[in-house]
Amino acid sequence: MTMASKHPRSPLAPERFPELPAIAGVGIAVGASGMRYKGRDDLLLMTFPEGTTVGGATTTSSIPGVPVVWTRRILPGGRARALLVNAGNANVMTGAPGERFAERCAAAVAEATGCRTDEVCLSSTGVIGQVPDAGPVEKVMADLAKAAAAGPGGPEAWARAATAIATTDTFIKGAAAETEIDGTKVRIAGIAKGSGMIAPNMATMLAFLATDAALGPELIRDLMREANDLSFNSISVDGDMSTSDMSLMFATGSAGNTAIDDLSDHRLAAFRHALHGIAIDLAKQIAADGEGATKLLTVKVAGAPSDRDARLIALKIAESPLVKTAVAGGDANWGRIAMAVGKSGYDIPPEVLTIRIGDQVVAAGGGVLPDYDEAAASAHYAGRDVRVTVQVGDGPGAAEVWSCDLTRGYIDINADYRS
Amino acid sequence: MTMASKHPRSPLAPERFPELPAIAGVGIAVGASGMRYKGRDDLLLMTFPEGTTVGGATTTSSIPGVPVVWTRRILPGGRARALLVNAGNANVMTGAPGERFAERCAAAVAEATGCRTDEVCLSSTGVIGQVPDAGPVEKVMADLAKAAAAGPGGPEAWARAATAIATTDTFIKGAAAETEIDGTKVRIAGIAKGSGMIAPNMATMLAFLATDAALGPELIRDLMREANDLSFNSISVDGDMSTSDMSLMFATGSAGNTAIDDLSDHRLAAFRHALHGIAIDLAKQIAADGEGATKLLTVKVAGAPSDRDARLIALKIAESPLVKTAVAGGDANWGRIAMAVGKSGYDIPPEVLTIRIGDQVVAAGGGVLPDYDEAAASAHYAGRDVRVTVQVGDGPGAAEVWSCDLTRGYIDINADYRS
Repeated sequence: MTMASKHPRSPLAPERFPELPAIAGVGIAVGASGMRYKGRDDLLLMTFPEGTTVGGATTTSSIPGVPVVWTRRILPGGRARALLVNAGNANVMTGAPGERFAERCAAAVAEATGCRTDEVCLSSTGVIGQVPDAGPVEKVMADLAKAAAAGPGGPEAWARAATAIATTDTFIKGAAAETEIDGTKVRIAGIAKGSGMIAPNMATMLAFLATDAALGPELIRDLMREANDLSFNSISVDGDMSTSDMSLMFATGSAGNTAIDDLSDHRLAAFRHALHGIAIDLAKQIAADGEGATKLLTVKVAGAPSDRDARLIALKIAESPLVKTAVAGGDANWGRIAMAVGKSGYDIPPEVLTIRIGDQVVAAGGGVLPDYDEAAASAHYAGRDVRVTVQVGDGPGAAEVWSCDLTRGYIDINADYRS
Repeated sequence: MTMASKHPRSPLAPERFPELPAIAGVGIAVGASGMRYKGRDDLLLMTFPEGTTVGGATTTSSIPGVPVVWTRRILPGGRARALLVNAGNANVMTGAPGERFAERCAAAVAEATGCRTDEVCLSSTGVIGQVPDAGPVEKVMADLAKAAAAGPGGPEAWARAATAIATTDTFIKGAAAETEIDGTKVRIAGIAKGSGMIAPNMATMLAFLATDAALGPELIRDLMREANDLSFNSISVDGDMSTSDMSLMFATGSAGNTAIDDLSDHRLAAFRHALHGIAIDLAKQIAADGEGATKLLTVKVAGAPSDRDARLIALKIAESPLVKTAVAGGDANWGRIAMAVGKSGYDIPPEVLTIRIGDQVVAAGGGVLPDYDEAAASAHYAGRDVRVTVQVGDGPGAAEVWSCDLTRGYIDINADYRS
């Protein structure tokens, strides 16, 4: 598979793309529109059987892309039959011509797959402000629909799908699990793309999950809200937020499990756990493919007033350019961690702050510990997997977030993204 | 003068340090404590005559440095006789030993200059979390006090002062003006240091101004609040905020001008204008010395609900790593400007947004203009002085902020600051 990225594969990439299982009823097809990239797939069509529900989240940007606005109209009803994604052009700030592109794409999908346009989710990623041409999309749609209808997409199809939605990604991202709901076996599979502009609130990232579980429209919405907070809203590459981001899960119901209404129903515990695992796995892969990333930075915060507060503080640390460059340089500069906590806006007296680098407590009680072993901390920072843990009080709130180091590679990629 | 920085001089540096006038009664002396740097001055003592008032602001970090906490106790009274600054060690997260350092420094200054310790402002910049040693400071204090007492410091002394407080700065920063209050000639001179962690809310930057104007303690506080918002709170290098930042103005009253109580008194107009000019000049010098900076980025926002809102939106643009890398690459990617506006949290429909690059209107009415000349926009981005102007509505709020491009140089400096 040809990746769009001209940049070297992230050293944090998993060895290989996992085997994603076919989900009964989920058709997967990819194609090349040529609208921006040459010689690679840039379109993904997924099709779903009647009765499929959808839940998820879209960017909170006040200038969302046209496809975001389109898909937001579908989410409240919670029903979908198809998803069309294109990579290379985000269809943002494109005015009425951009809306026309979205309408034509949805119409082409509806016609080719035999559903209504208001059952077609749309998603786009890429450059802002250029009106995309629907012609090339319409031209290939019959072929895509035919390929998707040929049967549920298995490991190969999922890998091609992950490749088609990639932009500056240096590796393709997927995760899957088998679990159960009230004794019935169900499967979840998902793909994602980063990177760049990846920040909480769904910044430039796309994630699409499918499951054969039967999940009502309200339940799938609640499930994805919870999963998003723990995963895609807990990563940051550069603090920027995209106009296009989206994470969706489609549930076909083919597994025939018991219908459950309530998120807290104990019969959902295994499914929730599996869903969180997949979403966090995908989110960490996105952070690990942050532009120019050479190290994964995991920040845990405990003792905050609430989980939400803990997440905000953790993200201040994980987003700080000075923390991220220190990680890049393998320089265990814990003062920059304290600086980032200080700017979080919370009233955290230095005395209550405990900072751990790796497993070593570095600072506590208002200052550095006398037996602080800087060489050990620097050795930890020199590794691929950097862990910072901060206790900010004795509150019940805790969170874990993921980011990456800030390197010359980030500059090289972003100072020259369009050229 | 030996600069601390081992990095090349910013291409945005002014040709030379300006001639800063002696301010009657203001003694200036520098010295070398050797506490971190070898072979350069790292201490600045300024002394002021009886009756001197002081006003200014300190970092809003919840983990402020010991000297910040010290100086915050002095500001409400608005009276000061001396200022001691040390560079290289920020005295942050240093616990009781750090407090002892501050007390010993203030005591040494008080004893050597003949004032009270609660009239001594303290300021430190540098590494966090290492307890500084007061011994070397005490050792040189008598010499510093003697030098400061020799007479008001003129251009040479100001330049040495600016050099002594520098850390990663690649050029020293100063500005001055002559103006009048109700017909009496008064002078203002000021020095500053950046860079790195420079963000609004007084992030790692120091600025010290002196004037021979007579300004009451309330008036100088109000004057500096206004000047800070227009200058030091309107710049950003990396969005990080320091634990140590401070901007102070000392007014000796030697000029003997009319006492004025009210900021809005028309007889203060010329002074305010001159003060704003100096503060903005220093702030822009700090932005121009952003770590690795090769271009100054000026962002203007108009049409916001208030000036404060306009500043927040402008800073979102000026702080965005994706905007800053686009500036670095000379790539007039206006979509990233729209993205940054979108993440500001304000409800700004794309239709009302107008984006200018240089003097060219690029996008308006919800999309790019048909006659957009990308080559001209890129030529503007390729220059040293990049200007982005955004209209976000028809509100009365406007602001102008300054930042710089994000380059490999930023990474190189910060991935290796302590080594």
